Amino acid sequence: METIFSEKHRLRNSKTELFGGELVEPFERPSRAEYIIDRVRAVNLGPVSEPDDFGMDPILAIHDKGFIDFLLTAWTDWQAEGFKGEAMPTVWPARRMSTHIPNHIEGRLGYYALACETTISDGTWEAAYAAAQVALTGAERVSAGAPAAFALCRPPGHHAAIDMYGGYCFVNNAAVAAQHLLDKGAKRIAVLDVDFHHGNGTQDIFDARDDVLFVSLHGDPMDAFPHFLGHADETGTGKGESFTINYPLPPNTDFATWRAALAKALVHIKDYAPDALIVSLGVDTFETDPISFFKLQSEDFSTYGADIAGLGLPTLFVMEGGYDIEEIGINTVNVLQGFEQANGGR
Amino acid sequence: METIFSEKHRLRNSKTELFGGELVEPFERPSRAEYIIDRVRAVNLGPVSEPDDFGMDPILAIHDKGFIDFLLTAWTDWQAEGFKGEAMPTVWPARRMSTHIPNHIEGRLGYYALACETTISDGTWEAAYAAAQVALTGAERVSAGAPAAFALCRPPGHHAAIDMYGGYCFVNNAAVAAQHLLDKGAKRIAVLDVDFHHGNGTQDIFDARDDVLFVSLHGDPMDAFPHFLGHADETGTGKGESFTINYPLPPNTDFATWRAALAKALVHIKDYAPDALIVSLGVDTFETDPISFFKLQSEDFSTYGADIAGLGLPTLFVMEGGYDIEEIGINTVNVLQGFEQANGGR
Ligand SMILES: [Zn+2]
Ligand SMILES: [Zn+2]
Repeated sequence: METIFSEKHRLRNSKTELFGGELVEPFERPSRAEYIIDRVRAVNLGPVSEPDDFGMDPILAIHDKGFIDFLLTAWTDWQAEGFKGEAMPTVWPARRMSTHIPNHIEGRLGYYALACETTISDGTWEAAYAAAQVALTGAERVSAGAPAAFALCRPPGHHAAIDMYGGYCFVNNAAVAAQHLLDKGAKRIAVLDVDFHHGNGTQDIFDARDDVLFVSLHGDPMDAFPHFLGHADETGTGKGESFTINYPLPPNTDFATWRAALAKALVHIKDYAPDALIVSLGVDTFETDPISFFKLQSEDFSTYGADIAGLGLPTLFVMEGGYDIEEIGINTVNVLQGFEQANGGR
Repeated sequence: METIFSEKHRLRNSKTELFGGELVEPFERPSRAEYIIDRVRAVNLGPVSEPDDFGMDPILAIHDKGFIDFLLTAWTDWQAEGFKGEAMPTVWPARRMSTHIPNHIEGRLGYYALACETTISDGTWEAAYAAAQVALTGAERVSAGAPAAFALCRPPGHHAAIDMYGGYCFVNNAAVAAQHLLDKGAKRIAVLDVDFHHGNGTQDIFDARDDVLFVSLHGDPMDAFPHFLGHADETGTGKGESFTINYPLPPNTDFATWRAALAKALVHIKDYAPDALIVSLGVDTFETDPISFFKLQSEDFSTYGADIAGLGLPTLFVMEGGYDIEEIGINTVNVLQGFEQANGGR
């Protein structure tokens, strides 16, 4: 399996994350991608390629232009105010408040954020842009006939909504890739989100559409970030009704329970008969992940990679979360190898 | 003029505020109230009294019970999770997200907050409760015939909405006092909010009501906290239509401009013919306030105190913001003395 990867991920290197009322070193840090690419190389998963540059259009096909314009200048605008820390919102358009977009950078941060743990700092946009190009290049490979590809995106993307960032995500890489596959001729794309956290951004983007099926297994939002999306009763709206499927799972969910939910998810995907599958691949379902509460073990990742291969679909894996950093390479590549081996080594 | 004051304000003594991407010493700190009470005593403004205890009912007459229940246990629930800092939300129900109330304290913080600069820590609820009793006691005095009273509340209250805290505010002291005056027989109450920041909480609480007129002069939310309420086109809803009046003013507004807006506000209040006036008294309009952008000077506070006295209404002053701490006592008491002197020393 070919891996698409850009060293530009290192430009996303914020120093602070708001966690437990303190500013800590971010869980989402450059070493995550380094551990993954090292493992990819160590096991000879396949070639590692630089992304092509598809420009801004595929990003603007998914995200609000005002939001992207905000991301382009947020760090500069923040610095111009003389603030000493990294850019973080402190107030947002809460219930019954106005949705006029403020002028001041503090107001715009609140308008375009859905979470404040994630800072914006120097290089954030450049890395997010590069990650989207990684996903697009992976989609291009699958569109061109590759049975599978791995878009080693960093920063991740699945929390990024039409016009909001948060949860370490700025541009929704999986969504950008899905749209690219459609634009290249696919009629239906399924996105299977196996990250521990609900892919609220991806759900938001495709909520009212029937050409992308969004299926997610995740920590119940009553107990887990992002807390405000991912309930089982969210099934899509309008034309998208029944094309969103959520499997919220409780604290301490083990692999047997998780795999049973995956089996149901795979049936839905099979019934949808998509032209290709995108897997939002987060490995924060791992038992020792520091910010999650599922109990998967390393060999379980191989097992479910094989389960996914059973669909027999052209598949693009798009990297999302995973914060037990020393194990992230093993767990991620276990999914990819499990998939490939079940797929007859294609 | 009698001042109502409780030393319990000191229980609100958080160590951190999120500002400019850093955790800093809070602008809203105990010394604020100390400077004010010292000045009250230094100029012999009048007697200083402890509040009576009106219990929880007047607070629950204004705020959502789930919100108050949350405030009662938030700090304990947060500590139980093992977090090391003070309680702060990191994610909230943003646009198009669900408003199910999560179980986890991080989710509940986001649900019940409208801003994240304001931490919850040990003693926060006890101080907020005491501040509400200070306001209620002041309302009781005015209801009993006092021409004026000063409720030296801390923490402040005007950003606290029906079911959300933020902007250093937890219980809306002015709103609790307004309701108490109504319950004691007043037919109409006017709330004049002269704090630099828009009183979004007070507006939210009385948005659909015609028995409380809310009039606010403040930094334009396009440029100033709370950024998402306080526009001139917000005029109340339903039965409350035309009973909300906002005067957003631009950066560097001087006293002449501010006073012209106040004159208009006072005409609206006079036309409303309320039985009593509540002044949400913030002095962060001062020229050297560290988080605001109006340019009032100390003598201007005396002048506008006299302007307000021109209404000839029984008046309860409820302390809100003001962060140039060494000047806060002088500026606050200037308003009260300006009012009293114009009122013939009553
Ligand atoms: Zn995740
Ligand atoms: Zn203020």
